[in-house]
Amino acid sequence: MAANAGPHPQAHLVLSDRSKQPILAGLRIVELSAFVAAPLGGVTLAALGADVIRIEPPGGGIDIDRWPVLPNGRSLYRAGLDQGKRSVTLDMRTEDGRSDAARLITAPGEGGGILLTNLPVAAWNSYDELRKRRSDLIMVAITGSRDGGTAVDYTVNAAVGFPWVTGPEGHDGPVNHVLPAWDCMTGFLAATAILAAERHRRLTGEGQLVELSLADVGMAVAGHLGLIAEASLDSHPRGRYGNDVYGTFGRNFRTSDGRSVMVLALTPRQWRGLLDATALSESFAELEARLGLDLKREADRWRARREICELLEPWFAQKSLADVRATFDEGGVLWGPYQTFKQLLAEDPRASEANPMFAMVDHPGVGSYLTTGSPLRFGASVPVPPRAAPELGRHTKEVMGELGVES
Amino acid sequence: MAANAGPHPQAHLVLSDRSKQPILAGLRIVELSAFVAAPLGGVTLAALGADVIRIEPPGGGIDIDRWPVLPNGRSLYRAGLDQGKRSVTLDMRTEDGRSDAARLITAPGEGGGILLTNLPVAAWNSYDELRKRRSDLIMVAITGSRDGGTAVDYTVNAAVGFPWVTGPEGHDGPVNHVLPAWDCMTGFLAATAILAAERHRRLTGEGQLVELSLADVGMAVAGHLGLIAEASLDSHPRGRYGNDVYGTFGRNFRTSDGRSVMVLALTPRQWRGLLDATALSESFAELEARLGLDLKREADRWRARREICELLEPWFAQKSLADVRATFDEGGVLWGPYQTFKQLLAEDPRASEANPMFAMVDHPGVGSYLTTGSPLRFGASVPVPPRAAPELGRHTKEVMGELGVES
Repeated sequence: MAANAGPHPQAHLVLSDRSKQPILAGLRIVELSAFVAAPLGGVTLAALGADVIRIEPPGGGIDIDRWPVLPNGRSLYRAGLDQGKRSVTLDMRTEDGRSDAARLITAPGEGGGILLTNLPVAAWNSYDELRKRRSDLIMVAITGSRDGGTAVDYTVNAAVGFPWVTGPEGHDGPVNHVLPAWDCMTGFLAATAILAAERHRRLTGEGQLVELSLADVGMAVAGHLGLIAEASLDSHPRGRYGNDVYGTFGRNFRTSDGRSVMVLALTPRQWRGLLDATALSESFAELEARLGLDLKREADRWRARREICELLEPWFAQKSLADVRATFDEGGVLWGPYQTFKQLLAEDPRASEANPMFAMVDHPGVGSYLTTGSPLRFGASVPVPPRAAPELGRHTKEVMGELGVES
Repeated sequence: MAANAGPHPQAHLVLSDRSKQPILAGLRIVELSAFVAAPLGGVTLAALGADVIRIEPPGGGIDIDRWPVLPNGRSLYRAGLDQGKRSVTLDMRTEDGRSDAARLITAPGEGGGILLTNLPVAAWNSYDELRKRRSDLIMVAITGSRDGGTAVDYTVNAAVGFPWVTGPEGHDGPVNHVLPAWDCMTGFLAATAILAAERHRRLTGEGQLVELSLADVGMAVAGHLGLIAEASLDSHPRGRYGNDVYGTFGRNFRTSDGRSVMVLALTPRQWRGLLDATALSESFAELEARLGLDLKREADRWRARREICELLEPWFAQKSLADVRATFDEGGVLWGPYQTFKQLLAEDPRASEANPMFAMVDHPGVGSYLTTGSPLRFGASVPVPPRAAPELGRHTKEVMGELGVES
């Protein structure tokens, strides 16, 4: 299809057609990817009904065996990150494989012609080369560093400062967070980028290359959270405060049955709720008088965090998790239990089929487990049920046939 | 404007008009928000050229003084999260204020009629009430828990399991990550949601309510990363491995000048690069023979992580950060220095005006510092220069006049 073609013939489907479909029905995205960022961007769009086709080499990409793995060798990583996609295998070391992949990426169709990648771009799949085949191509390319340097979530995290403010107070050395947060955010921003570029194409007929890097995402977020400003303007850099939430009241406490709970008071109302629920108003009034602070003020709660903790700890030490839950839920306290991943599944009704986001799904060769759909709920569209990841290469023939790419 | 109206009159601007504009020019989003998730979603769209109007009460919302703050009391949080937005103050405790806010949210215009909120929804700004004024309204509502329970980033993080796998090996108790990762991801997903709903409206004329919760985002990500599968299918739950990257080789090392570096080998090529750069191939060949492992295999590098570390530590102990940098950049090793936020600014060229994402911007009343724009680079559109946050209420008259909402 030609670029700049103006309104697409099917652009204005009647409402009744689309309201029976998932929100992103009609979009087709080809993914050349590994590890987390691009696969998560792709699975996010697939969970909203886009047709996401992941192309991998025969035998699988570099992350095919990525841990966690089952004793049978199957990767649970892949099972989660490829949910609901279609899997195509092509040997891109050969001229034919590269040609097929390029034809697949640039196949016609109003919602097609979208490539999402976080792999190094080669000559055959550069934006300039691919747009020769489809001039309105959208390509979202994720890199490590904008300057071309190699970077992954873990090196970006090291660079942007968080490991020095994370971890137990007094700990020597950096503490990485285990969640690959920069990968995840980059994946979600890539999904945003695809929709923004597709909007532009719908308005103008024009495709484009969109670039983003993990390092830029990390630094942009540090900027929006005020950490770059703080490092620039404040001579006393932020410290490491363990589980204390900076600038307010929030931290963990241990219950009589050895569980841990996170308790916060970000607002005056939440602070009052905590005092009422623990029946410690008098003790805190004495503390305020002694310290000359007003604990209704967030900054004063931060200043008095040690003393607040000393008053609260004995209260928690006499209560079981069930006691805390009953008292705090009744009293509107802002709190939550710490849960291991197993406890999340065993104890939290949000992580069960009672939550419509989840369903028990059988993943062939892997097993049956509680499987997520999209956390986004669109009132005017139907949700996509949680789905398994496809077997490697499961859709090669089907997709090639549909798109008229016959090897 | 009416719903189901079919193609909008200005929907097909000529290409030359849009290519001189930012990618999201023409979108108008009203934000009723606090803290991180919705403000970050809004600032993400503003940095791409959307007109994002944050409505706050006179004197500011509940997060107006949120730390980090300067000695003069100005919040660096707000300075970062409201960059490039317009600020309108309305007293929504009064009937007039609520009416003005509702008129502003539902004011006419093709790209308008979009509300982003993470505040509790009241009667006046419920989706059903607002759509009486504009039937094609898009409303993206962020909550803590889908079930109506109060939850914030920190309680979600406690619930979804990461604090038990984060932090130094052997540490007793949960370790929170300091980055409000769930808030950030939710903000980026809210941006995705707005664009998906706007696409639907463009195709059908129909608006909608989109809901998402921090808890669902946390659990969905844990699902896609394989952690729910692992907790379901694996009887031995994931442990806490400090800074070791699970299932591969990656961890921190200390240099002779007391700096820390993050070093990884996720691929056979990266492993070879590390052996070559450190000239330790022979020692590692001996280690492989002794342990009966093949360190070209990722899983074997994980199994031998302690021994690998013992061989590498003395190498790093004799090298300064500058030595490591020279050797590793030359040798293509996957690595990066740990940097505090101050070191990021002082030492990393990516965090400087050499990076087009950044500019030095004066933030009135706050100061001048390196300020971020969007990490997304759209080839077919002009970038939005980094901008300061507005003074509270700066645009009240301007916006009310433009949108024909005269109090």
